[in-house]
This record gives sequence, structure tokens and C-alpha cells, in this order.
Amino acid sequence: MDEENIVYVGNKAPMSYVIAVITEFEQGAKSVTLKARGRAISRAVDAAEIVRNKFLPDVTVAGISIDTEEIESEEGGKRNVSSMEISLSK
Amino acid sequence: MDEENIVYVGNKAPMSYVIAVITEFEQGAKSVTLKARGRAISRAVDAAEIVRNKFLPDVTVAGISIDTEEIESEEGGKRNVSSMEISLSK
Repeated sequence: MDEENIVYVGNKAPMSYVIAVITEFEQGAKSVTLKARGRAISRAVDAAEIVRNKFLPDVTVAGISIDTEEIESEEGGKRNVSSMEISLSK
Repeated sequence: MDEENIVYVGNKAPMSYVIAVITEFEQGAKSVTLKARGRAISRAVDAAEIVRNKFLPDVTVAGISIDTEEIESEEGGKRNVSSMEISLSK
């Protein structure tokens, strides 16, 4: 089984993450996982859909999971943030 | 098999959708599906996580799917928007 390849989705334009995913597959990865938290979750879905629909039609969504992570807030306390992982395979 | 119960997630606060999901389950639903498009996708994940972690610990995520929908833009053309469905069961 090959090592898992992870692309963390943040605040850049979706195309940044699309290119990162395509690069992983072109380097031989059989699966790539997009990980995002909070508002970046929508962007991770955009990136996955663009990869599949515009660039790599043989890539499929192998699985999607959601979770809650506890992060340090800027005020020093803790707050919960939703997270999502989208696993793409070919 | 019971009728599928759908909660459409839009621009309200996540708690609005949390309450809608809880109400469906309290009325006897065995499964409830959260549907969202575009930026509301993150909010749908928040709502699902809040339902599971704070209110109904016996509810599980039965499945998550993503897709692309074509919508009419305000200028009259068409554009693509990502969509997501989260199925919750108990």
C-alpha cells in the first residue's frame, strides 16, 4: 500500500489545491487526501470536483469523513472547529 | 423504508439547521440528509457535527457525497457550484 499523500486546503484559490493534487497523481500517487477545517471545507470540495470534472476523469472519491477538532483560539481559550477529509483515488 | 427527510442548509446560523435535524429525528425519522451548496457546505458540516457531539450521540454519519451543480448566474449565464449531502442515521 502506498504512503498517503495529503494536501492541506487553506485560504488560497481552489486552483492552488487542484494543481497540488494533480501533481501528486502525476508523481505516481494512487490516492490523495484533501484535508480542510472550518470555512476551507467548501474550498476542498471545490478542488476535488474540479480535479475530477476538468482534469482527471479517472479519479474517484474513495471516501469522505467529517470530524471536530479542538483548536487554540487567539484569546488563549479553546474552541471547536469542523474538519473534513476527502480521499481521491485512481 | 421510511421517506427521506431533507434539511437544506443556507445562510442562517448553524443552530437553525441543528434544530431542524433534531426535530426530524424527534418526529420519528430514522435518517435525515443535510444538503448544501457553495459556502454553505462548511455550515452543513458544522450542523452535522453539533447534532452528533452535543445533542444526539446515537446519530452516525451514514454517508457523505459531493457533486457539482449548474446554476443560473445573476447575469443570465450558467456557472458551476459544488454541492454536498450528509446522511445522518440512528
